[in-house]
Amino acid sequence: MIYLDHSATTPVDKKVLAAMLPYFDKDFGNPSSIHSFGQKAVAGVDQARSQAAEFLCCEPSEIIFTSGATESNNLALCGIVKAALSAGVKKPHIIISSVEHNAIIEPARELKVEGAEITHLPVDKTGRVSLVDLEKEIKDNTILVSIMFVNSEVGIIQPIREIGKIIKKINERRFNYWQKEGAAKKMPRPRSIYFHTDAVQAVNFLDCDTNKLVVDLLSLTAHKVYGPKGAGLLFVKKGTEIKPLVVGGHHERNLRSGTLNVPGIVGLGDALSLITLEAREKNNKKIITLRDYLAEGILKNIPDVILNTDRQNSTPAHAHFTFRGAEGESILISLDFEGIAVSTGSACASHSLTGSHVLSAMGVSEEDSNYSVRFTLGKNNTKEDVKKVLTVLPRIIEKLRKMNPVYKKV
Amino acid sequence: MIYLDHSATTPVDKKVLAAMLPYFDKDFGNPSSIHSFGQKAVAGVDQARSQAAEFLCCEPSEIIFTSGATESNNLALCGIVKAALSAGVKKPHIIISSVEHNAIIEPARELKVEGAEITHLPVDKTGRVSLVDLEKEIKDNTILVSIMFVNSEVGIIQPIREIGKIIKKINERRFNYWQKEGAAKKMPRPRSIYFHTDAVQAVNFLDCDTNKLVVDLLSLTAHKVYGPKGAGLLFVKKGTEIKPLVVGGHHERNLRSGTLNVPGIVGLGDALSLITLEAREKNNKKIITLRDYLAEGILKNIPDVILNTDRQNSTPAHAHFTFRGAEGESILISLDFEGIAVSTGSACASHSLTGSHVLSAMGVSEEDSNYSVRFTLGKNNTKEDVKKVLTVLPRIIEKLRKMNPVYKKV
Repeated sequence: MIYLDHSATTPVDKKVLAAMLPYFDKDFGNPSSIHSFGQKAVAGVDQARSQAAEFLCCEPSEIIFTSGATESNNLALCGIVKAALSAGVKKPHIIISSVEHNAIIEPARELKVEGAEITHLPVDKTGRVSLVDLEKEIKDNTILVSIMFVNSEVGIIQPIREIGKIIKKINERRFNYWQKEGAAKKMPRPRSIYFHTDAVQAVNFLDCDTNKLVVDLLSLTAHKVYGPKGAGLLFVKKGTEIKPLVVGGHHERNLRSGTLNVPGIVGLGDALSLITLEAREKNNKKIITLRDYLAEGILKNIPDVILNTDRQNSTPAHAHFTFRGAEGESILISLDFEGIAVSTGSACASHSLTGSHVLSAMGVSEEDSNYSVRFTLGKNNTKEDVKKVLTVLPRIIEKLRKMNPVYKKV
Repeated sequence: MIYLDHSATTPVDKKVLAAMLPYFDKDFGNPSSIHSFGQKAVAGVDQARSQAAEFLCCEPSEIIFTSGATESNNLALCGIVKAALSAGVKKPHIIISSVEHNAIIEPARELKVEGAEITHLPVDKTGRVSLVDLEKEIKDNTILVSIMFVNSEVGIIQPIREIGKIIKKINERRFNYWQKEGAAKKMPRPRSIYFHTDAVQAVNFLDCDTNKLVVDLLSLTAHKVYGPKGAGLLFVKKGTEIKPLVVGGHHERNLRSGTLNVPGIVGLGDALSLITLEAREKNNKKIITLRDYLAEGILKNIPDVILNTDRQNSTPAHAHFTFRGAEGESILISLDFEGIAVSTGSACASHSLTGSHVLSAMGVSEEDSNYSVRFTLGKNNTKEDVKKVLTVLPRIIEKLRKMNPVYKKV
């Protein structure tokens, strides 16, 4: 079996699993317990928190463990809006990109019902937002900008650091103006515009130093980085005004209650600790070579194919194609028969009947969107894996095109 | 090491861990993926859902997997209130008991801020609510009653089935009246009062057939029943009007989004499948014998002790004592030195500075509350474990009392 769907999820690394195992039945205490069993669990969580903080170049106290990135994203958006509403902000305004994951788009939609104002930034044909557009959309009532670091479908990298710097500059300008003019007139101190990034798809490949990225909030999840499902985190910069989503036990600085998932958290910390600069550079180099071999092989051997991933500005892992005339789901199933796992887009959207909102925002037609397949490579893939794809895929595409009465051969 | 804090958490059963292991690195797919890796994960989740449904005597589609009971409780309360608010209910009224876990009390407090009305039912000196009190508190705007099945601190069992029957009777009476009188006058059909129970502490010991309990919603978590931390569920009876807390991927019938924690869910299902009627009766018999041996040994060998657990009406596992003059936390730490793990109350409250709200509601003075310790036995405890406690505890209590200048020997 060849797995080429690493953006959907990854296998747990053997080292990570080994780190987790003692916490299931040996050091199984509840970290809220005072006795030794509890304290061993606390030690595991503390280490994971330090590992996560080191990875994100932040303080351990700025890490809020959650059940995964969907919860982290919900907490970021709802928590910031709730805090703004209870501070008296009338119609809090949020800016998101039009290519965000549903775990951003849907909480934003809910918040709109509850009185927030939402702006969806457009993207260019590679999937990137424009800094000029962003700056234009910022208004007096803007309280949050949330732009994903890497898009899960096509792999495009957004200019997070540049966005962070723009927002910081605006916050500083507002604060300086208030200090000079407003404070004397007893005007309220201006609220910061917070900047959140969903970094789920970036963690394996890109520097996630939260200082360099100039972000206030950052979501990630363990299962996309060779850790377990069910554990994620939200980085919340010290001083950020945010309210919890789940309450009831005062865990995680009152921002996320519930008995901590100790083995999962230990796995998350360990998985992040394995992504050293050295390991990342080594894996990136390996994966990009395989991805380029795959992409060039497909473009060379199969006619009428579009590569939707901008290789100059994407993760090393992504290769998203439109095979005109061959339906994505049929390609997926045909490859699965050959023991090769790929995706037609975001895994979370795999049971959705509408086309990809990401491709649509990039200007890809619904028809081309339906003819699309995503390959995402991982650190365990080999050249043999890619060779197998290059051997079987041309025949699959040819066969599917022959079965498609509306497809006109180029 | 002797573990007598099974209400805080339990070790993962070896069989459960064995069932989970393949899903970390072999069948690691995302259940939202269409390919074989995804479908193997789906099969694991489906089996767990069937196991949970069998345990609760409900339909698999009535199981919503969550990250644990705190989230389940938050979802139950906030989800029912949100649905009522968006259906136009002006001031939704919720009844909870005054001995609920903080994962009920705190969401209720938040909902009060957002416009709900909350009633806290008192309890008698054993910790039980009164059916008469409950019926008196139900009003026209009551939309939800949430009473825990078993209290985590003292182990008292609430009359869930009787409460469920009262609520059902009221719902039927309202509906029949409406059919006879209101429908013709175009009065809106009356909303059901929903009944939720936090069954976390009951699952190991009591029949959780949701039909017999006459509940609409029920929370439980894996880590209290020899399953892993990070996986729980909310039973939501078909037809219940409820909104999600976490959105973004349409998982779990749109009620809980986020990549499913496959190994955790498999562990939860497997843990529940091990609690057969036969296993439960066998474990209950064993545990009650040990508990009674412990309780009687302590009452016999240590003077001035109060057993706060009503043994006639509690789980087999609980034995909660007040050792007048000996501070609970000091007893805990002294026992920990002897390799024995106990608790001073709810683990989640272990770092709290205020006394137990449960004991306070039962009429225990704050002073006595501070002199209290909870023992909760489990299926792996032995007579030797209890003997060790009975050997070391009298000396510990005597020593602590000697150090307490205000304690007057009886």
